[in-house]
Amino acid sequence: MTYEGMWSTLAQIGRHDRTGGYRRYTWSEPHRECELWFQEEAAKRGLTLESDGNGNVVAWWRPDPDQTEGGVVTGSHLDSVPDGGAFDGPLGVVSALAALDLLRDNGVQPARPLGIAVFAEEEGARFGVACLGSRLLTGALPAERARELRDADGVSLPDAMERAGASPALGPSLGLLHAPSAFVELHIEQGRGLVDLEAPVGVADSIWAHGRWRFEFTGEANHAGTTRMADRHDPMLTYAMTALAANKRARLTRTRATFGHVEVEPNATNAVPSTVRAWLDGRAHDEESLRALVEEVRRLAGDRAQRDGTGLEVEAESLTPGVDFDADLRRRLVTRLGGAPELPTQAGHDAGILAAAGVPAAMLFVRNPTGVSHSPAEHAEAADCVAGVHALADVLTELLAP
Amino acid sequence: MTYEGMWSTLAQIGRHDRTGGYRRYTWSEPHRECELWFQEEAAKRGLTLESDGNGNVVAWWRPDPDQTEGGVVTGSHLDSVPDGGAFDGPLGVVSALAALDLLRDNGVQPARPLGIAVFAEEEGARFGVACLGSRLLTGALPAERARELRDADGVSLPDAMERAGASPALGPSLGLLHAPSAFVELHIEQGRGLVDLEAPVGVADSIWAHGRWRFEFTGEANHAGTTRMADRHDPMLTYAMTALAANKRARLTRTRATFGHVEVEPNATNAVPSTVRAWLDGRAHDEESLRALVEEVRRLAGDRAQRDGTGLEVEAESLTPGVDFDADLRRRLVTRLGGAPELPTQAGHDAGILAAAGVPAAMLFVRNPTGVSHSPAEHAEAADCVAGVHALADVLTELLAP
Repeated sequence: MTYEGMWSTLAQIGRHDRTGGYRRYTWSEPHRECELWFQEEAAKRGLTLESDGNGNVVAWWRPDPDQTEGGVVTGSHLDSVPDGGAFDGPLGVVSALAALDLLRDNGVQPARPLGIAVFAEEEGARFGVACLGSRLLTGALPAERARELRDADGVSLPDAMERAGASPALGPSLGLLHAPSAFVELHIEQGRGLVDLEAPVGVADSIWAHGRWRFEFTGEANHAGTTRMADRHDPMLTYAMTALAANKRARLTRTRATFGHVEVEPNATNAVPSTVRAWLDGRAHDEESLRALVEEVRRLAGDRAQRDGTGLEVEAESLTPGVDFDADLRRRLVTRLGGAPELPTQAGHDAGILAAAGVPAAMLFVRNPTGVSHSPAEHAEAADCVAGVHALADVLTELLAP
Repeated sequence: MTYEGMWSTLAQIGRHDRTGGYRRYTWSEPHRECELWFQEEAAKRGLTLESDGNGNVVAWWRPDPDQTEGGVVTGSHLDSVPDGGAFDGPLGVVSALAALDLLRDNGVQPARPLGIAVFAEEEGARFGVACLGSRLLTGALPAERARELRDADGVSLPDAMERAGASPALGPSLGLLHAPSAFVELHIEQGRGLVDLEAPVGVADSIWAHGRWRFEFTGEANHAGTTRMADRHDPMLTYAMTALAANKRARLTRTRATFGHVEVEPNATNAVPSTVRAWLDGRAHDEESLRALVEEVRRLAGDRAQRDGTGLEVEAESLTPGVDFDADLRRRLVTRLGGAPELPTQAGHDAGILAAAGVPAAMLFVRNPTGVSHSPAEHAEAADCVAGVHALADVLTELLAP
């Protein structure tokens, strides 16, 4: 069966032997393999591939070749976080292809084009900016800033693209979507909202405000044995207290705060560190609450830095305001799906970037039994995935009708 | 001048442009350059080079070629911690060569051989075991265990030696020192003991007990946005509390505890970590106090792990008991140096490994104005370094007399 075949091909690409997680960093070899897989699937279906200079691709089904505008676009992304799961991203692409197959099986005659999009660097795992492809496409991220981005090895974004055989031409490219009438992204849910609601599929109503802040704690590298405890300026202590304080603050304010990325210098067992760099991932229902959370964490970190005799610098790397998905489109989806539940998400998505740029956008979530995501343990039941394909096909049928 | 020439040559090797610190990892290219430099200095002086299969080297001055046993050995090491200073290790080697030059200038006729030793992997920065060369030489570390050691890239110790052009033959090799009558290691002080004592040079009386413990905190990788705070099993929190608790405990018990080496998986900004591995460097005057410190830190970490729903495993990677240097040898040094002060150290040294194996061993420390070590900011005043050379030459003259 085509649907299972797509999954079994993808399952092989970029899986790390030891962790069992996926490492599909944008423009890496495994990511390039995923893209080639998508191109082949598009070719099998006779779809027309179009791409921009930001690494985004759309495969078009245009029953009337003269009608290029006002289409319906679906899709997601193929890159992963380090050791990510199988579903985050690929579920939206595989389901889009499978839904298109269903439409054809059902003899649906689309009144407008249907596009299946794959956006670049959605996770920001390589260049540190989530939804990089869609942010460039809408102009939310200036090309000048993107050109300065470098990966952990110091490779710039344009260089990485060229090394992968792509031709970088960074900048706004909304034309790639040809003035769509709607964008619908299907995605595995990354929490347990649908578990609680006992529903296999739901409709997203909003995305929380979210961002990344780099905390740089500086101290004095020194010998771990001979330096008296009282003589130290140890940035690890300032960091440790900050990580605990951020967690406590998020619990108290019903927001989210995570320190999941840490770099230590010199990172030697027998040396007091000179620097600890740690990234705060913060999320809140609205931008004001998010800013208040980060300010409070920064204040507590600063107080502790004074006691430790360490330095602290905080730099905002990204801040994405919250977004409500198109109310009219949501209503059509909920009705078509027989009253599917609506729920918010704390995760950023390309659909949110497009919504913020004025594209009528919506999302479908597929139930995640444990809520676990960004982990090899991420899982969705096969029956729920099939329900997702059918829901997407239903929705597309509705949106493609005359 | 030869002395300054030696320093200016060494200063170029393995220095990192950005940090200004040295990265001379054992059997790396910069370390190999340091070894070649030492071989050239030995050749210039007509010394005979001998080496074992563990990477240790001794350059011998044998006025009577038939007399090979009962000599006096001095020296230190040439490898560094990541971004280490210029003096930790090289000061002992350069001072040994300079002291030998002084003896010859002074017309000293040694009654027994003089050896200048360079021990391998003293810092343990590449393979995680400090004083690796001297531990293998004395048999304190079994060859079977050493063969299993791997560096961060997974390269085994024997493979690393072969790649550097060495011929590994791991195992006891005390014969390399030819039953020495004394071993004296000169080293930059790594604390501020001599500053307080207002003395340029001092004699070590003992080394504290010290060791390394690997703390592995395991949790559940998950999405940093969508996972409710209450649903998390975040090992970063358990680690953070443990780092703070270890610091507090060391302050209270007048011991030393440092977490300077941390590894996070998957180490992504938008993922709750699955694993945080952190190494505790612990030191105390005696082994019992050290064990009590580590047990208390482990207990506090375990309590917090229960609250966080995380896992904890602690593995002792090394434990070196405290050692008192040879009382008779110390007395001779102090007397010869006109009543130089004695002081303990919290740092492990090859001299401590040899002392534990029954070699009459002692150490000279050169004043460190800030106490900073294992850092690019490590420093010693030129006048104090010269005082160290003269002190070492005095001591060697005493020990080489008929």
